[in-house]
Amino acid sequence: MTGHTPKHEPSVQQDTLIMFGDSITQGAFDQGGTGAALANLYVRAWDVQNRGLGGYNTKWAIPIGKKWLPQVGEDRPRTALMTIWFGANDAVLPGYGQHVPLPDFKTNLHTLITLLRSPTSPYYSPTTSLLLLTPPPVDTARWAAELRSKYPPPPSPTGEEQPLEFDRDPENTRLYAQAVKEVGWEAGVPTVDVWTAIMAKAAEIGEEGLKELLVDGLHLSALGYMVVTDVVKDTIVTHLPDLHWDKVPKHYPPWGEMLNACLGDE
Amino acid sequence: MTGHTPKHEPSVQQDTLIMFGDSITQGAFDQGGTGAALANLYVRAWDVQNRGLGGYNTKWAIPIGKKWLPQVGEDRPRTALMTIWFGANDAVLPGYGQHVPLPDFKTNLHTLITLLRSPTSPYYSPTTSLLLLTPPPVDTARWAAELRSKYPPPPSPTGEEQPLEFDRDPENTRLYAQAVKEVGWEAGVPTVDVWTAIMAKAAEIGEEGLKELLVDGLHLSALGYMVVTDVVKDTIVTHLPDLHWDKVPKHYPPWGEMLNACLGDE
Repeated sequence: MTGHTPKHEPSVQQDTLIMFGDSITQGAFDQGGTGAALANLYVRAWDVQNRGLGGYNTKWAIPIGKKWLPQVGEDRPRTALMTIWFGANDAVLPGYGQHVPLPDFKTNLHTLITLLRSPTSPYYSPTTSLLLLTPPPVDTARWAAELRSKYPPPPSPTGEEQPLEFDRDPENTRLYAQAVKEVGWEAGVPTVDVWTAIMAKAAEIGEEGLKELLVDGLHLSALGYMVVTDVVKDTIVTHLPDLHWDKVPKHYPPWGEMLNACLGDE
Repeated sequence: MTGHTPKHEPSVQQDTLIMFGDSITQGAFDQGGTGAALANLYVRAWDVQNRGLGGYNTKWAIPIGKKWLPQVGEDRPRTALMTIWFGANDAVLPGYGQHVPLPDFKTNLHTLITLLRSPTSPYYSPTTSLLLLTPPPVDTARWAAELRSKYPPPPSPTGEEQPLEFDRDPENTRLYAQAVKEVGWEAGVPTVDVWTAIMAKAAEIGEEGLKELLVDGLHLSALGYMVVTDVVKDTIVTHLPDLHWDKVPKHYPPWGEMLNACLGDE
């Protein structure tokens, strides 16, 4: 059928911002969430694709990422930016199913980065910017109470109350946050230090500050997400200035141009 | 190169919810916005694509929609649902550039619907559900004051204050809302009566109710969007029950399945 001009141009696909992470990403379109805030900032420029997977660690994320990451040669929207935000579950203590040892966590993050950065990868995407985010701090006592209320243990035969189970530890999660920063430094990927930003805000609020920033000791509140949004924006401004929301071209003419074009028709 | 098996399955594309409309759609990822709320409800199922165009009427929207609507035969995500939410600008009074006469407004909405419904359309998509939304009511005095502060008139030579200019009229906007419902009835497309829902909520709040639901007399506040989200959800439950957010299949296994699969490996 050569010689025939196609009747239509291919449909325009907006670039995407893919948010890859765990439940904290999955919840990022909730009230005040960072996903919603970024979708709002980049409206008419990028479509935000939430690829948050509740409960996932980096080990499980890699095979799933390979299912949806656009491949070389495919007719897919260009991924302008991808956020990689894991660690909250990798940092679960040894003996619990979600636990990923710290060195493996770092290796897995490097693997995720390499999927897009290696020229021999089927997912190679040299025009995609990457942004790593560290996990937020954890309030283990509150999270243990949350787990207890979600999964009450069977009544003890002696009637004794069973002690709370602590599947995470604040210092351990801090190490995983630190590891994300190391990976960022090693791979040359800008990193959003969510851990430090949330701790700083908690200190600013006062003694019970972390309670206002985490809804259940693990997941961010609207206020917590707003803190994250601010540091994400700061990181874009500093490290990815070409991706500033005011600089990324917007699709489709402002309405005044449509008006003038239509007046020209008459 | 026949006989070679491709190394990779094509990358998974999530279905989409496309929101097509004017500035009230464009702002729907803002705090409390209906776009964010739907993206949150349908996370891991649909990607929400905001195709809101500030200031646009249906006349200008049609050629723009034809640029991005997926075409028959293209490798594009399936559009599971498309919301069509115009009227706030079409209802501008005659003499102003955005005005679209009421009969033309209805014709244009039918044209948009036909793009996806007609088997001969290059955008034919029989598995896409449609949802019409009516424009919200307008508080003309407040909107006129907003316009005045945005675009102050040149100082009058006599020093007199110039009267506010009213580019919209509440009763006229009500007629455009009514027209959307008529189009929905005529085309068999479920319609979300935003106008009535906002008016009912305003009455419930009291005398100044509309002030809390519209930020500037024209655009919705977070509370206004929440009212819209509720009626959108009600409409889905009643008229598109298969698209209930709890029924639409979610992508990727729950983490417990990943854990079990990995335990199986060891």
